[in-house]
Amino acid sequence: MSIRLGIIGYGNLGKGVEVVVKDAPDMDLVAVFTRRDPSTVKIQTAGVPVLNVSELTNWTDKIDVMILCGGSATDLPTMTPEYAKLFNVVDSFDTHARIPEHFANVDKAAKEANKIGVISCGWDPGMFSLMRVYANSILPDGNDYTFWGKGVSQGHSDAIRRIEGVINAKQYTVPVESALEAVRNGENPELTTRQKHTRECFVVLEEGADAAKVEKEIKEMPNYFADYDTTVNFISEEEFNEKHQGLAHGGFVFRSGKTGANKEHNHIIEYSLKLDSNPEFTTSVLVCVARAAYRMHQEGQTGCKTILDIPPTYFSPESGETLRAKML
Amino acid sequence: MSIRLGIIGYGNLGKGVEVVVKDAPDMDLVAVFTRRDPSTVKIQTAGVPVLNVSELTNWTDKIDVMILCGGSATDLPTMTPEYAKLFNVVDSFDTHARIPEHFANVDKAAKEANKIGVISCGWDPGMFSLMRVYANSILPDGNDYTFWGKGVSQGHSDAIRRIEGVINAKQYTVPVESALEAVRNGENPELTTRQKHTRECFVVLEEGADAAKVEKEIKEMPNYFADYDTTVNFISEEEFNEKHQGLAHGGFVFRSGKTGANKEHNHIIEYSLKLDSNPEFTTSVLVCVARAAYRMHQEGQTGCKTILDIPPTYFSPESGETLRAKML
Repeated sequence: MSIRLGIIGYGNLGKGVEVVVKDAPDMDLVAVFTRRDPSTVKIQTAGVPVLNVSELTNWTDKIDVMILCGGSATDLPTMTPEYAKLFNVVDSFDTHARIPEHFANVDKAAKEANKIGVISCGWDPGMFSLMRVYANSILPDGNDYTFWGKGVSQGHSDAIRRIEGVINAKQYTVPVESALEAVRNGENPELTTRQKHTRECFVVLEEGADAAKVEKEIKEMPNYFADYDTTVNFISEEEFNEKHQGLAHGGFVFRSGKTGANKEHNHIIEYSLKLDSNPEFTTSVLVCVARAAYRMHQEGQTGCKTILDIPPTYFSPESGETLRAKML
Repeated sequence: MSIRLGIIGYGNLGKGVEVVVKDAPDMDLVAVFTRRDPSTVKIQTAGVPVLNVSELTNWTDKIDVMILCGGSATDLPTMTPEYAKLFNVVDSFDTHARIPEHFANVDKAAKEANKIGVISCGWDPGMFSLMRVYANSILPDGNDYTFWGKGVSQGHSDAIRRIEGVINAKQYTVPVESALEAVRNGENPELTTRQKHTRECFVVLEEGADAAKVEKEIKEMPNYFADYDTTVNFISEEEFNEKHQGLAHGGFVFRSGKTGANKEHNHIIEYSLKLDSNPEFTTSVLVCVARAAYRMHQEGQTGCKTILDIPPTYFSPESGETLRAKML
């Protein structure tokens, strides 16, 4: 019998889940829920109903795992504990500093309802977190390095758009190639914020706006840009729409560690992602985690979990026997 | 209370375990067992006894997990099922084709004794297997690529040493840089054996041996060299001893996969290892797995397991709470 999935929220992530589920041999999408008027939401999959979230209580015995496709800033902190009272849930909550608090809220709700809630799944937090835990466990004496990009930072793009005279903006975070190379060569460099990433901005100005003033305001913005080497490019709205709509992203996690009686041996573990579509990769992880959540719940596990708690075989539709024969 | 570890076998792997355990805050090495006369085996750790394997039955309540440091060809197929009757065990069995058979033997022995046995831990099989399972689960529509090296292949070095006129030999497996680049660029190449790796041989000849004949014999050897571009270098015994005693190794696991309604988005996952000491990295994995085996057994799990069955948090000495706060 297939695992019955639901989606709450039909933005970039929800659309990604819908596409990814089609490739899963053991899962079916059974309904999409929205806080909007369902008649205004058109989905791609024939035969799957779109419903208002007010109908969720009628679906508790028809959906095995609900994938929550809301934002981390305001949606998920309330959505995930609320819906964990009704369903097994999976989310991509990515505000690193608030994970312990979110975990506690989801854990309480899910345990009371005998459900499971897996939070913070995607690539960072998510696959990058897994890599940090494995690599730190294997090489306890060493240094961690995480680089992001090249890819759009939504928060930095938003910050630029709030400047007077700016119509539109995209900000790309770019890892510094020489820093990557130094880490890869086992030099164990101490890297400042400025030495790890640069920031490239593409900005569309209002007619008559003062470019020099906007550029200065961007480059000196505390927290966001002041600690980085920042490049500002002013472009036309046409060029912006043509070249800066991509969803590509990626990054690198390194562990550089030493072993040996005299710590004479260095080892470098590198994990990297190069993604054409950040939301589709994130949802590819979410769908695997939904499979794992279903299996863990079938075993009797309840409460809040993260990707760090999941046995790797649970990600795969294949049997343990097949995985051992083909992939071990 | 610390986890009490034992070692059976004191070669490269056993020595590596001894070094690595010193960095583990939650584990103690309590005894080393050997099939040799224990008085001929001198270990590095003061106060730890070296004993003959005939005394193993006296230690069943003094050791939580035994790390089996034997070879895959002849030792482990019998050692692991035998000792799983007495202890929780961990091994690094790496004959990929025989894993299902080894699994079945260890599973039967461990289940009957209510013990746990984790087999085939290291980097391949081991961390590379984990990466294949994660990446295939996340990107079901794609291609896998595994490259090994640069590093010594023991089997190929042995094959050269069996040729008449050869005193000593080391064979390095080297990934082809242009093939790595093609994969990294998302070209999804179809690669023949010859296009993936080259083989570099360093050979010491007996006086008067026919170099041309030896070179021909190496290059035409079926299975081992005939399908590869092979370079043969004849060197002196001094040069061999000076430059070819290293234990470095490494490799790359890639998954290149597509998502999107029309499969229009490509994603590349790359995991790479650059290791100064192949045995010390392998033992670093074995020691983490021993920690996990102890925890899984404490939970009541028995039988044969692999690295694919282990929740990632079990690798780490840190609590789940700490890992969520610091690494998620």
